[in-house]
Amino acid sequence: MRTLEWENNKLKLIDQTKLPDELTYVYCENYKDVIIAIKDMVVRGAPAIGVAAAFGMALGYLAGEDMEKVASEIKAARPTAINLFWAVDRVAKSENPLDEALKMFDEDIETNLAIGKYGSEVIEDGDTILTHCNAGALACVDYGTALGVIRAAFNEGKDINVICDETRPRGQGASLSVWEMQQENIPVKLIPDVASGFLMSQNKIDKVVIGADRIAKGGVVNKIGSLMVALAANHFNVPFYVAAPLSTFDFEASVFDTEIEERSADEVIYYGGARICPEGTEVINPAFDIVPKELVTGIITEKGIIDPI
Amino acid sequence: MRTLEWENNKLKLIDQTKLPDELTYVYCENYKDVIIAIKDMVVRGAPAIGVAAAFGMALGYLAGEDMEKVASEIKAARPTAINLFWAVDRVAKSENPLDEALKMFDEDIETNLAIGKYGSEVIEDGDTILTHCNAGALACVDYGTALGVIRAAFNEGKDINVICDETRPRGQGASLSVWEMQQENIPVKLIPDVASGFLMSQNKIDKVVIGADRIAKGGVVNKIGSLMVALAANHFNVPFYVAAPLSTFDFEASVFDTEIEERSADEVIYYGGARICPEGTEVINPAFDIVPKELVTGIITEKGIIDPI
Repeated sequence: MRTLEWENNKLKLIDQTKLPDELTYVYCENYKDVIIAIKDMVVRGAPAIGVAAAFGMALGYLAGEDMEKVASEIKAARPTAINLFWAVDRVAKSENPLDEALKMFDEDIETNLAIGKYGSEVIEDGDTILTHCNAGALACVDYGTALGVIRAAFNEGKDINVICDETRPRGQGASLSVWEMQQENIPVKLIPDVASGFLMSQNKIDKVVIGADRIAKGGVVNKIGSLMVALAANHFNVPFYVAAPLSTFDFEASVFDTEIEERSADEVIYYGGARICPEGTEVINPAFDIVPKELVTGIITEKGIIDPI
Repeated sequence: MRTLEWENNKLKLIDQTKLPDELTYVYCENYKDVIIAIKDMVVRGAPAIGVAAAFGMALGYLAGEDMEKVASEIKAARPTAINLFWAVDRVAKSENPLDEALKMFDEDIETNLAIGKYGSEVIEDGDTILTHCNAGALACVDYGTALGVIRAAFNEGKDINVICDETRPRGQGASLSVWEMQQENIPVKLIPDVASGFLMSQNKIDKVVIGADRIAKGGVVNKIGSLMVALAANHFNVPFYVAAPLSTFDFEASVFDTEIEERSADEVIYYGGARICPEGTEVINPAFDIVPKELVTGIITEKGIIDPI
């Protein structure tokens, strides 16, 4: 399953806002289409956003646009994902933006296969693994980071069970991660976000593996809720792993200086098309949180498992 | 606002499954109606369930039913709430079940006013208070336990802000607690459940006040998710209070022996009428969790603030 592909000089994206009910595609014909797709979360997940942004740069280049303008507009699509900046800067420096984007596409797949190989070493036969949000094939070009680790362990014949939490407000755990696991017949159960602590208290979760939107000095930025899962894992001595490519790392900055995107109140107010609270309710809706390094057992990268920085 | 009332020999209940969009009532004419209302969560919240159960006993008595049968059927309606057992047993021992139920109705209001009075002593001017689920007027006859503390502080003129988390799977924080606060113009914001840890990390929550379904030796049983909130509060040094009447206490049993009700998968799978995950998704849906006493700052009762037992 390819989350995105370059086809006839267009960027073809799985429309993730339609999953799990419909597997449909969106075609981006110019860089502005790519920005809209990133903003509306047609494509989401840090590595996938990075490669989509690279193809956005390629589309701008092919159309003869002002590349500085294209780069700054694409970077503004979502403020937190470091891969977005990394990908845009890398393409900007390249001689041929399309060749560079295609190279990043191939590298992303190789990287995830390597993350899976290293990560599966910490997964034991019989493990029940909790994951939060979707750090799967749908968050990358293919295979996935956190779900790549799970896929690799399962494909090696390990008897594992997966628990996906719902991941409110947008429910990517319920709609995307559960769907990905079902596609490959990996045993999976869904829980409300509020239940992972209780399951850990009952020794029903052996490992946590999540992705990352940004790793910097002092910890990991990931989907809102990662911090609460990490605190519960720490309290109940459940190993807590982060799976992410090295392109997610910022070795210079402090993680605590990260700008945390505040998303629309409607993501919380409406769910499944219905309003879940009284009219006129005010909302706080941060998209990410920060897991301090003390709570992270290890970071699974394409070069091996390392300590948080 | 009365969550339940005795009217023309019937038990009148606010239909909490219709809030916040419609304020409608359900009338229970016999004890089986009361059991259905408890099971379907037309009435919910430990104290309200207790008083509703007492009126269920009165309805059985007035209809000349076999009272042992009535008592055991009502007790089986929801397995975790200790008030349910306490209320049924108290009415069973009384000379006149209706008089006893009416007495419990009055006592519940007095109890909550006393909890509010004691609780407001720990709320300071300028506090932002997080509450989980609905331990409000709607969980009691009137006024509420956790929300009673907030009401009392607000009515004393303290400048406070309230944050309600959504409380998946049934969303009582979003639909009921936000609504109650709005009814009295208490400033309130809604957050996804996953966000409270992040807000605590940013020093944006000063106190947590929740209710309890059962307090026993070693800790507190409350709505699923309470444990994760308590772990975050503990980590970020945010005082974590439980507001509950003494009828919620079981001084003999260990809290860790509590039977945790597993509720229907559909509560997680469907939300706002829509399916949020692929068809055929398996679910784990525990209704409650256990907050160990080390994580509880104090329990606010009608007799004062005490340590957990």
